[in-house]
Amino acid sequence: MGVDNKLNIRIGKLQRGKLNKITDVPGVKVGHFTLDDGENQTGVTAILPHNGNLFKEKLMAGCHIINGFGKSTGLIQINELGTIETPIILTNTFGVGTAYNAIVKYMLNQNKDIGNTTGTVNPVICECNDGKLNDIRNMSIKEEDIFLAIENSCDDFAEGDIGAGRGMSCHQLKGGIGSSSRIIDIDDYKYTIGAIVLSNHGLKEDLIIDGRKIGQKLVNKKENYIDMGSIITVIATDIPLSERQLNRLCKRVPVGLSRTGSFINNGSGEIAIAFTTANKINHYSNSAIESFKMMRDDKIDIVFRAVAEIVEESVLSSLINSNTVIGKNGMRIENLNSLIDLNSEFK
Amino acid sequence: MGVDNKLNIRIGKLQRGKLNKITDVPGVKVGHFTLDDGENQTGVTAILPHNGNLFKEKLMAGCHIINGFGKSTGLIQINELGTIETPIILTNTFGVGTAYNAIVKYMLNQNKDIGNTTGTVNPVICECNDGKLNDIRNMSIKEEDIFLAIENSCDDFAEGDIGAGRGMSCHQLKGGIGSSSRIIDIDDYKYTIGAIVLSNHGLKEDLIIDGRKIGQKLVNKKENYIDMGSIITVIATDIPLSERQLNRLCKRVPVGLSRTGSFINNGSGEIAIAFTTANKINHYSNSAIESFKMMRDDKIDIVFRAVAEIVEESVLSSLINSNTVIGKNGMRIENLNSLIDLNSEFK
Amino acid sequence: MGVDNKLNIRIGKLQRGKLNKITDVPGVKVGHFTLDDGENQTGVTAILPHNGNLFKEKLMAGCHIINGFGKSTGLIQINELGTIETPIILTNTFGVGTAYNAIVKYMLNQNKDIGNTTGTVNPVICECNDGKLNDIRNMSIKEEDIFLAIENSCDDFAEGDIGAGRGMSCHQLKGGIGSSSRIIDIDDYKYTIGAIVLSNHGLKEDLIIDGRKIGQKLVNKKENYIDMGSIITVIATDIPLSERQLNRLCKRVPVGLSRTGSFINNGSGEIAIAFTTANKINHYSNSAIESFKMMRDDKIDIVFRAVAEIVEESVLSSLINSNTVIGKNGMRIENLNSLIDLNSEFK
Amino acid sequence: MGVDNKLNIRIGKLQRGKLNKITDVPGVKVGHFTLDDGENQTGVTAILPHNGNLFKEKLMAGCHIINGFGKSTGLIQINELGTIETPIILTNTFGVGTAYNAIVKYMLNQNKDIGNTTGTVNPVICECNDGKLNDIRNMSIKEEDIFLAIENSCDDFAEGDIGAGRGMSCHQLKGGIGSSSRIIDIDDYKYTIGAIVLSNHGLKEDLIIDGRKIGQKLVNKKENYIDMGSIITVIATDIPLSERQLNRLCKRVPVGLSRTGSFINNGSGEIAIAFTTANKINHYSNSAIESFKMMRDDKIDIVFRAVAEIVEESVLSSLINSNTVIGKNGMRIENLNSLIDLNSEFK
Repeated sequence: MGVDNKLNIRIGKLQRGKLNKITDVPGVKVGHFTLDDGENQTGVTAILPHNGNLFKEKLMAGCHIINGFGKSTGLIQINELGTIETPIILTNTFGVGTAYNAIVKYMLNQNKDIGNTTGTVNPVICECNDGKLNDIRNMSIKEEDIFLAIENSCDDFAEGDIGAGRGMSCHQLKGGIGSSSRIIDIDDYKYTIGAIVLSNHGLKEDLIIDGRKIGQKLVNKKENYIDMGSIITVIATDIPLSERQLNRLCKRVPVGLSRTGSFINNGSGEIAIAFTTANKINHYSNSAIESFKMMRDDKIDIVFRAVAEIVEESVLSSLINSNTVIGKNGMRIENLNSLIDLNSEFK
Repeated sequence: MGVDNKLNIRIGKLQRGKLNKITDVPGVKVGHFTLDDGENQTGVTAILPHNGNLFKEKLMAGCHIINGFGKSTGLIQINELGTIETPIILTNTFGVGTAYNAIVKYMLNQNKDIGNTTGTVNPVICECNDGKLNDIRNMSIKEEDIFLAIENSCDDFAEGDIGAGRGMSCHQLKGGIGSSSRIIDIDDYKYTIGAIVLSNHGLKEDLIIDGRKIGQKLVNKKENYIDMGSIITVIATDIPLSERQLNRLCKRVPVGLSRTGSFINNGSGEIAIAFTTANKINHYSNSAIESFKMMRDDKIDIVFRAVAEIVEESVLSSLINSNTVIGKNGMRIENLNSLIDLNSEFK
Repeated sequence: MGVDNKLNIRIGKLQRGKLNKITDVPGVKVGHFTLDDGENQTGVTAILPHNGNLFKEKLMAGCHIINGFGKSTGLIQINELGTIETPIILTNTFGVGTAYNAIVKYMLNQNKDIGNTTGTVNPVICECNDGKLNDIRNMSIKEEDIFLAIENSCDDFAEGDIGAGRGMSCHQLKGGIGSSSRIIDIDDYKYTIGAIVLSNHGLKEDLIIDGRKIGQKLVNKKENYIDMGSIITVIATDIPLSERQLNRLCKRVPVGLSRTGSFINNGSGEIAIAFTTANKINHYSNSAIESFKMMRDDKIDIVFRAVAEIVEESVLSSLINSNTVIGKNGMRIENLNSLIDLNSEFK
Repeated sequence: MGVDNKLNIRIGKLQRGKLNKITDVPGVKVGHFTLDDGENQTGVTAILPHNGNLFKEKLMAGCHIINGFGKSTGLIQINELGTIETPIILTNTFGVGTAYNAIVKYMLNQNKDIGNTTGTVNPVICECNDGKLNDIRNMSIKEEDIFLAIENSCDDFAEGDIGAGRGMSCHQLKGGIGSSSRIIDIDDYKYTIGAIVLSNHGLKEDLIIDGRKIGQKLVNKKENYIDMGSIITVIATDIPLSERQLNRLCKRVPVGLSRTGSFINNGSGEIAIAFTTANKINHYSNSAIESFKMMRDDKIDIVFRAVAEIVEESVLSSLINSNTVIGKNGMRIENLNSLIDLNSEFK
């Protein structure tokens, strides 16, 4: 699972980060737990916004609901307070409750004050429905699987049919985890912005790769297929941005999605979350007034452009890095590479 | 737990329903599970929007986030699709994951098609932090507790320190579950609207009862108390209203809350959900176009007024129906009736 | 017009500012133009957020739509960019276009770069319908009236039936302009927060003064009155707050409105705008990253409480400072003082 | 002005309407007023949702703010009440006040009850900044220009550098008015959906036509160009949709915009409005409860797909139908056809 193909197609014009993954943003780590067991083809992906104690050092964050046919938790509080205070967990729709419980326990274990001398904690769990390949009714994700995903977190994580991406399909092909990053010069300093997607949306006929309607080549006959899929996008950066500006970033995610062929269908839970490592908010503080840095909005277009590029590239990366998977009832979802030779298409 | 005192104070001018509870709306039922076990003082309250199969016959619904310091699930999809398809579960903050799992299992059991031949399901779970009286770190709510709350659902449910209300405090007094209803004449037909609250917010000094600053009489000395509480409100009606209009109802909930002394503090998860039994949406249907009824907005003020009344009265009812509770670390939260004789105050 | 009665009723517990008006916030000024001419009873009120060039030095701002039956301009951009760059103009509903034109001209005159070497400008105009007293179909507000209101701006402005308040009714009594302020200690520094309202909403029977249902004493017989009114609230402060936090302030405005008897009726355009003089954003800047100050959300409750107090008091002040006005078709709207002796009620 | 080139490129797969314009939706008409006078290159476009009295027979409507750097009026009330009650006027940014005044007068003239025996009216005015070609500081749009645009309304209106599009630029090429439509079969009935855009956004290098990066061919050298532009989209349909669903349509507008090269830059006022002629709401009615039709959300994907197609095609149509225009300070904006032979590119 999770092959290491980075796209040899150049999406956009900005400079890629070293790994071309969200983990190019210093401090950000990603880990997977994958369940590849017959009818159960599912998993968990954990995104750790920084290495320290997230509850004690929250990060500024924003979010946006592109289409709300989804069951994520934690977004309401991100929107109200502009902070994130736990790892972000991606999993299947019926794993949300278990992931919520696991994150509560993980945070309680790290913080003896939660639920005791201070308030509670806001787990951020996002999901897609992997019910085509995975027998989702089994609710096979266990709390320890979330802990394992967190433990496995690292910089050079795998993409494709791995972690939460194991059972997901993207444009009716095998999709899942994809990631990409860009480097941006601002005031003579190099900043990084990266995205990770859990791709599980779209029709085959609609797939676009770098502007080309590849999907139409892959479809033999007219199919009646209702897209019930979703796509979760998480954006990380070290650019100083305010909560409002992080929300603005999230609102540019549809640009990348549209360019790979999505028209944001009814059944899609399309959620975007963005955080910056540049503005930390301590859980405890004596002073009532604190200083933050933010980018001027009249200089922010380069960041919006980067969001469009990394989201488009992340979706493609989720396709290119996936292997064909056989799951529930023998359902087989082909990977893109088995259907078309992209190297000859895009040489 | 859960005494049967209905307020002898007249809030507003509209006619009360027979039980003066949300269950006056035909088909709506409420059930509790209460855990009264030393350090563990918590519980579950289930609201059943109708008696049938909710997934197959969804109800039109709306919601509104008054203040988003909260961890509810399901609101994003209510907002997108304008429907509710599960019972609404109220419990403590760290019971949300377990309640989510329980509702998924409950719905899977009733519907063999979910996650199989059709999509997933959207559990609606709302919470307050009962950590003052309840050792919330124990995560003592179990999946069977949610099933029991649903099984216990009935018309004439108890209010006060019961169900999800067991560990909650309202204006630093014992609060929890409160409910109220009103009858409204529209086009010569009698409709019902009811509310239920899970009250867990506010400062003692701020408590207002029917306009009187009762709270100031109850406070002896200056206290430094930070309100970390929340209040969940669910509104049910059989008036035909659109999703947009149900959202509008939810936005009038703060009127009732303000009049009992809330100023919507920072730490409060103030969430409102409203549904109507008048507009059902079948999960399966052959026709693409369907008919619905809605009220004219220029006639809706009587409904807005009713929302203000039933929310104000529900908060008071949660106080008046609560007994003093002793919980975690011997913490004792007094009930209102032990501190003041309301019958002599409001005769 | 505009008598100088400040309320001798103590709303809340926080310390009032020197004038108990929004202009207690250093730099904020308010000016009126009043048209008292037979059938035409209307006017303009201008709020100047600071003394300098607002376009070149914008202020951080937020807004919230409590009920959107209204025709304000400028809110969309406040919400997107978190800044305000013009005076805020209050007038009648059909004066909005003219006020928009006047503000464009005022800003063009001050800034030769607008629409030339830089972009355009975002006029913020809010309105209520004064059509009961004023023959609003005459569209009698002229561009020069807006300029006069701005020129008349000062610290110790009048309240009541003056400026934009000339033709407004509040709880079926003469209302209009009201204002109030509070002083808050934060980190040993004294900050100021103030509100101004244009009150034009509510039913007589619902009027509440400091918790007492005064309105019920004023109603002789059952009336069939549909409230088509609105209320605009502007909040100013020198507390460092972020755009998100200024939005949060605006969401507490309904607390004060509810406590004076509003239940946010259908026909009401209830709009709240807040700005802080503490965070200025220069229109031109060389650096892409800038520093701002914001308050910790866990310390913000005192500010929320202040909002509740100043909005409640501003509504009452708009009533108490109004004289009876006779307007269109001989319509007479009584002032509160002529109906009840508040000094004997609240001694 | 306004040549009659319809795109010979096939965008998407759905059937085009007869004129391939928004006016294919029965009852919808569009009219222009164009000012081509030296430094003043601007105009007005009026969209008439139906032929009757719009105030008396409102239409269900929704809207969405894609990016809020804009000065539109009327959206707040569309969002609250879910109706539109005036023609929609498109013009330049500093024409908004005058257009507001003109629409008020137009509606007052048609309706003697407005501002007299009933409430006010909500003018819907949208704008882009045409300040590159037009000396916008002149505020040259007059009230009679709005009346003329309305009078000129017809089915087969011109596109390109006409009406409000006269001074607009799209991807640094001459843009302005573009339109497109699709026919959709639902339950064996043929419905129509159409869009009109006022395009004034984007960079030349980013222009995409049907997936091809045409923009990159048009750029000779690196330019430093900050996009201050905007794009307004209006969608009309006769499909029965609820207010919530019309909002959902608006949220798919970015799909079409992204596919022509937009990444939703900071300076863009990107606004979408949608209305349906299928659900009329009478201003006066005796009954409090009324019936409406709506589409099932699980069948709505075809409509979302149509929105993506007609918005993409409308943007392209605004380019293809524009002539080169010379305006303020001799500024010359080339039309697309003068730079590239699309017929040979897309044969």
